[in-house]
Amino acid sequence: MTKVVVLLSGGLDSTTVAAMAKADGKELYALSFDYGQRHGKELHCALAVGRSLGVARHEVLHLPLGALGGSALTDASIDVPDAPTDGAIGDAIPVTYVPARNTVFIAFALAYAEVVGADEIHLGVNAMDYSGYPDCRPEYIEAYQQVADLATKQGVESGGPRLVTPLIHMTKADIVRAGVAANAPLDLTWSCYRGEGAACGRCESCTLRLKGFAAAGVPDPIEYATTG
Amino acid sequence: MTKVVVLLSGGLDSTTVAAMAKADGKELYALSFDYGQRHGKELHCALAVGRSLGVARHEVLHLPLGALGGSALTDASIDVPDAPTDGAIGDAIPVTYVPARNTVFIAFALAYAEVVGADEIHLGVNAMDYSGYPDCRPEYIEAYQQVADLATKQGVESGGPRLVTPLIHMTKADIVRAGVAANAPLDLTWSCYRGEGAACGRCESCTLRLKGFAAAGVPDPIEYATTG
Repeated sequence: MTKVVVLLSGGLDSTTVAAMAKADGKELYALSFDYGQRHGKELHCALAVGRSLGVARHEVLHLPLGALGGSALTDASIDVPDAPTDGAIGDAIPVTYVPARNTVFIAFALAYAEVVGADEIHLGVNAMDYSGYPDCRPEYIEAYQQVADLATKQGVESGGPRLVTPLIHMTKADIVRAGVAANAPLDLTWSCYRGEGAACGRCESCTLRLKGFAAAGVPDPIEYATTG
Repeated sequence: MTKVVVLLSGGLDSTTVAAMAKADGKELYALSFDYGQRHGKELHCALAVGRSLGVARHEVLHLPLGALGGSALTDASIDVPDAPTDGAIGDAIPVTYVPARNTVFIAFALAYAEVVGADEIHLGVNAMDYSGYPDCRPEYIEAYQQVADLATKQGVESGGPRLVTPLIHMTKADIVRAGVAANAPLDLTWSCYRGEGAACGRCESCTLRLKGFAAAGVPDPIEYATTG
């Protein structure tokens, strides 16, 4: 059985990736991070998704990314904005960007892959509705594959683990459809940047998600405070 | 003044790199990690070196690398071996190898560089006396530079921070000489993998260090339990 490390944030994208790998008969080693997000809801959802998918192991690592500051997602002094009303999502790098976040996450995924002997690392990065994050682009992933091949004992001996990004060229609507097709537990996912009792429906992440479900013609199974 | 992030472990190599950058008139932003090493002596030395060099800021991040297991440096169930007596250091990847350690460390350095606005990241990696660690080779650093250029908001806007490795082609003796020339506080450094009151003088790290000082014709200012 192919062992796969999957970065599981508890969001729509990573949950879909994990469900797709499971549907392909792969054994899942989930990796989630507690990195000073403002709320623990996302992490709670990641653990629920992992249980639902029957992962072989779920590692939750506490990372001090928030200690460095610099993002509205980890720094309480920066407000999370509503999405631009003119639809210009993705034109500029937003304040919700966490410095080098995916670089740090993939580095830990490499360590985990080596320890458990995984052949692949599955990532929910997406270059279409990517909100301007530079570390979600295909050229970034390709560069990191070179690092993965050179960085580890595993890589030296038998080639590094393959970075697999099945969603990278999908629209949010494609992702919703792929999640439904793979029986992903979308009702357990969480995308809102604000993270109160119900999703806010107004931040950039909620806005992208709601547009995706609408375009796919699938009802979003989670609760919203407003649909803006 | 050029701002430089320097990964400071408290060892001979990173201390020399930091002292060289200071001698070049750069402003130092030190970054050290508490990653489940067996002893805190190395970290204590890193902080003392940082103070001695007058760094602008010293960030110590707690990383859960040890939680994943897989190395004698973080896993108490694996013994740290003596160096091979036949002098074959570097022929195989040793059990002291920590999975993806440098990949994780450089990822955090990228985040730190972006937050403080540093132009360079200085690393004490060394491909000569590298003990078989795959993540100390020039081709690894070159691949990571590509990631650095693509990963961050800083990289997208003005090119990623430059990864600088002044020791990469030096022998341990060259490093000792460079450290002396840059007035590095070598008396505050620590290299021993075992980390008791005095350095053991017998592990691979002590053995490489002692050979370096001997070849440079410089007395090692730290105390050894044995020179074995």
